[in-house]
Amino acid sequence: MKIKINRNILWCDVFTNRLSQLGVKDVCISAGSRSTPLTLSFNMNKNFSIYRFVDERSSAFFALGMAKKTRNPIAIITTSGTAVAELYPAIIEAYYQRIPLIICTADRPNYLKNIGANQTINQNNIYSNHIRFFSDAGLPDINKLGIIRKIAEDAFIIANQKNRGPVHINFPFEKPFEPDSFTDSINENSIKKYFLSAKVQLKDNLKLPDFDLIAKNLDNKKGIILVGSNGFDKDFPDLLMRLSNKLNFPIVVDGASSLRFGKHVNKNIIDNFTTIVRSKIFVENFQPEVILQFGAAPTSNVVLEYFKNSTAQKIIVNQFGDLLDPSRTANKIIKIKPSIFCTELLKKAGNNLSQKSWKNFFIHSNEVIEKEKEKFFSKNNFPFESKIIYELLRNIPNKSNLFVSNSLPIRDFDFFASKSKKEIKIFTNRGASGIDGINSTALAIAHKSNGPTFLVTGDLAFFHDLNGLFASYKYKIPITIVLINNNGGGIFESLPISNYKEYFEENFLMPLNLNFKKIVESYNGIHKVIKNWKRFTLELNNSQQSGKLTVLEIKTDAKKSKDLRNNFWHIAVEHLNNYINEIKS
Amino acid sequence: MKIKINRNILWCDVFTNRLSQLGVKDVCISAGSRSTPLTLSFNMNKNFSIYRFVDERSSAFFALGMAKKTRNPIAIITTSGTAVAELYPAIIEAYYQRIPLIICTADRPNYLKNIGANQTINQNNIYSNHIRFFSDAGLPDINKLGIIRKIAEDAFIIANQKNRGPVHINFPFEKPFEPDSFTDSINENSIKKYFLSAKVQLKDNLKLPDFDLIAKNLDNKKGIILVGSNGFDKDFPDLLMRLSNKLNFPIVVDGASSLRFGKHVNKNIIDNFTTIVRSKIFVENFQPEVILQFGAAPTSNVVLEYFKNSTAQKIIVNQFGDLLDPSRTANKIIKIKPSIFCTELLKKAGNNLSQKSWKNFFIHSNEVIEKEKEKFFSKNNFPFESKIIYELLRNIPNKSNLFVSNSLPIRDFDFFASKSKKEIKIFTNRGASGIDGINSTALAIAHKSNGPTFLVTGDLAFFHDLNGLFASYKYKIPITIVLINNNGGGIFESLPISNYKEYFEENFLMPLNLNFKKIVESYNGIHKVIKNWKRFTLELNNSQQSGKLTVLEIKTDAKKSKDLRNNFWHIAVEHLNNYINEIKS
Repeated sequence: MKIKINRNILWCDVFTNRLSQLGVKDVCISAGSRSTPLTLSFNMNKNFSIYRFVDERSSAFFALGMAKKTRNPIAIITTSGTAVAELYPAIIEAYYQRIPLIICTADRPNYLKNIGANQTINQNNIYSNHIRFFSDAGLPDINKLGIIRKIAEDAFIIANQKNRGPVHINFPFEKPFEPDSFTDSINENSIKKYFLSAKVQLKDNLKLPDFDLIAKNLDNKKGIILVGSNGFDKDFPDLLMRLSNKLNFPIVVDGASSLRFGKHVNKNIIDNFTTIVRSKIFVENFQPEVILQFGAAPTSNVVLEYFKNSTAQKIIVNQFGDLLDPSRTANKIIKIKPSIFCTELLKKAGNNLSQKSWKNFFIHSNEVIEKEKEKFFSKNNFPFESKIIYELLRNIPNKSNLFVSNSLPIRDFDFFASKSKKEIKIFTNRGASGIDGINSTALAIAHKSNGPTFLVTGDLAFFHDLNGLFASYKYKIPITIVLINNNGGGIFESLPISNYKEYFEENFLMPLNLNFKKIVESYNGIHKVIKNWKRFTLELNNSQQSGKLTVLEIKTDAKKSKDLRNNFWHIAVEHLNNYINEIKS
Repeated sequence: MKIKINRNILWCDVFTNRLSQLGVKDVCISAGSRSTPLTLSFNMNKNFSIYRFVDERSSAFFALGMAKKTRNPIAIITTSGTAVAELYPAIIEAYYQRIPLIICTADRPNYLKNIGANQTINQNNIYSNHIRFFSDAGLPDINKLGIIRKIAEDAFIIANQKNRGPVHINFPFEKPFEPDSFTDSINENSIKKYFLSAKVQLKDNLKLPDFDLIAKNLDNKKGIILVGSNGFDKDFPDLLMRLSNKLNFPIVVDGASSLRFGKHVNKNIIDNFTTIVRSKIFVENFQPEVILQFGAAPTSNVVLEYFKNSTAQKIIVNQFGDLLDPSRTANKIIKIKPSIFCTELLKKAGNNLSQKSWKNFFIHSNEVIEKEKEKFFSKNNFPFESKIIYELLRNIPNKSNLFVSNSLPIRDFDFFASKSKKEIKIFTNRGASGIDGINSTALAIAHKSNGPTFLVTGDLAFFHDLNGLFASYKYKIPITIVLINNNGGGIFESLPISNYKEYFEENFLMPLNLNFKKIVESYNGIHKVIKNWKRFTLELNNSQQSGKLTVLEIKTDAKKSKDLRNNFWHIAVEHLNNYINEIKS
């Protein structure tokens, strides 16, 4: 039977239907005229949940957050023009963190390019420096429906598996865009095949490396395991703990990783390494022969420096063979899922019994620091920035999400977050470490979670993405934001430039002097200024009952906090040195 | 004499000194660590005015606005990472409007790329689709100071003259960044030459086209002059009026152009052409033989359509030979400054006396519409969106700036803004016609102006750039923002998709339901809801006395306004048809 169709809509229907079959569930859309066929097609397919945004920058970061939490590709739709460029910051973050995003940009036909037509820019591979796949779909053509189906498949498979990360499909359209504005008459049966469900199997030509050799190589070695960032399989933490026990390698867990938290946590996990390595005596006396790195490189410069100066063999393990090695000291990159690596190595590795004392030394050093930390942080010291992290972790419930913002909060977290059996999922934007899009990313995580979500952030990052709060307002997403307000970029206090008083305050601190209360309230949020720790605990609890956006603002002094940090490190390292001298004598 | 220096600072000093000599005066900076040498160097040179921003997107749009108003290149500084991508929307707008921006992005050295180093992305020609010049400066080298001086010159000359628009210089730096962290010892005399002032003259190999031929070609022709957008020389309006008088070509002035306003304005200026061309009788009976287009293509689709269907010879005149011709009907692009074109043509053109009646017909048709417009707009009709434009123009004082936002305000303005002898400078972002960055761009224009600045915008564009209001707060920039709040994208009401009720409201209108009052007040602004025209006049006057950010919000009904517009066009066209039938009979 012949039916009348609009070719733009049919074209998009084949595309969106295929994405849905493959598993895409969530779509972030910013409205536009040129993107009408995409917007309608995604909306008419009831398998999709649609999220709508005015600010495309927020849209992309919200998509990033959902993809982080669900680990499933999220589609993003924009119309033509600068809207396309608005997505770029989030795409860069997704690129480096290998977060799957399927960017669909509407475009004008090629013949309208570079002739002064309205809202027409050059979208051809516009994200080329930071995209895993680009395709220009070409103008919709009822004789090429197989092509758009294939583009959907390619985009999904690359984004989700093959080269995980953001992918971009550009969609030129000619008017008319509406379903009832018919452009063609076609045989209904002829198009059925383009809507059929079919599984796509990626041939996973997994070639295992020689684990006999790897195991032999680790035999009787003094080793350290480093775990950075997230994105590991569910069984990875337990496998890792078994490997650590067998090899007697302590596990240094970066602050940007969730591995400091959960049921798997035991004494093998070294959470104070950023303090430990500040001891010269430690570094001189305890050098590993092997470093096994899973995930990203360390957040902390002192840890990076320790690795850089180490003569240890460094082996980097991750799924895509990414060279995550800023110290440029890796001897080997093994392209394999960390969970498979652990499983296989556990089969082959010997019991590294000779190195039990090596591991125990790390464990005891870690305990020495932890004890000092407890002592130091038990002092009042309101509103010491680092203690905000410490208090927050004490107070948030089991099964929480905690988003830790750039730049100062993640550093403080890396320095001071103590491990615990509480299941806390840590999220960060450490791909490109921008201060942009933080509120949006965190809200998306909150939206996709059952447990409560907390965000700890600074005033500059909070300000940068104020528009992101709209998602909480529109979609009624509760979140508790701990706003560390040092009235400017406290991170710069720790840099040498802070000694250049004449230029420093105005150019680097960038004081905002903003009253955030009114802004938060205009998004239907609760805003409280916190003036002591007791109140902090109380309001953290209250915020979880409210079911609302809650901003708990703590006004801090970046310079005083910096001095307290240094003070702690001084004391803690002194104690560690005493301990080392003791066991050495 | 040998002196100790930091090579990053010296490198930047050569660069910034040269930019200053060439004429750069204003710099927008967003702080970062890697960009420290650039930030310090620009700050230490007292010839620069420095503007500081947290949100780099706002920074770039603010720079765009300053460059629009001053017509001088503005430098923008960011650190490495996503900050670089944040500039992209404004760069695209600058590219298509040929606004000179000098983008200076700090970067990590190449050897830190793609190895998982923090805040390190691929900045190599990252804006490649929309940039007039890119250079990677390479690592600072005291033996290559001539190179960085040359890069400054090239960047400036291209941005300002040769291929006007945004240019990008990427600056990799290695630590240390501070002036007193010495890296080299050099002979003081050896570097003096890199700081010498020297004029750079661009050889302006102006080859004039054959004006005898052009003049002959226009002889005794029925012609129309179309003026789109701005950026013309100061003497252009008067030259244009003389040309129009001599050739008897009426001048159709687009709403996005300032040429509807000023002392030069007379009856030759046709400000109601967007209504006139809706008359089929007009189009059938009055077809030009020549169209002379200065500047951008028309904003209005009905005018574009008129040109597309015209068989007239179309000649496009602009400084860079840009193909500003979406209807693809140009016979000739003449690459020359419009003012020079007019001057030369005036020397050669004959007095096209035979076409006096042709011109007069346009003038009278325009007057017929204007009369109807006055009648129609004299009705109360609060809060008819188009009448907001009409009332605004009646009330703003001589020597005002008026920024007209996308998408609906500029269309209403193009349709309904009546010409006047008042000197009003019109500004728009019609390069890529985004709704992003509007507040920032308008505030920068306000900042660089003596007279008052008004912005007329919709709720979506206003929301998109809320962060831009920070510039008003920090730099105490007064502006009057007329906020047409139709609670969503009223522009979509005029598209066919508005008939798809099921999807329309949620997906295209995007109602915000936001209370803007609190947000405006948190930036120390005044917010008023306007409920009648009298109050509108009053508050427009008050806002100019206050010296503050003032937002006058008018809640409108997009659908009712659409009906009123159609109603007007119907009546006006009927009257025009009567007039035409009369003169024909």
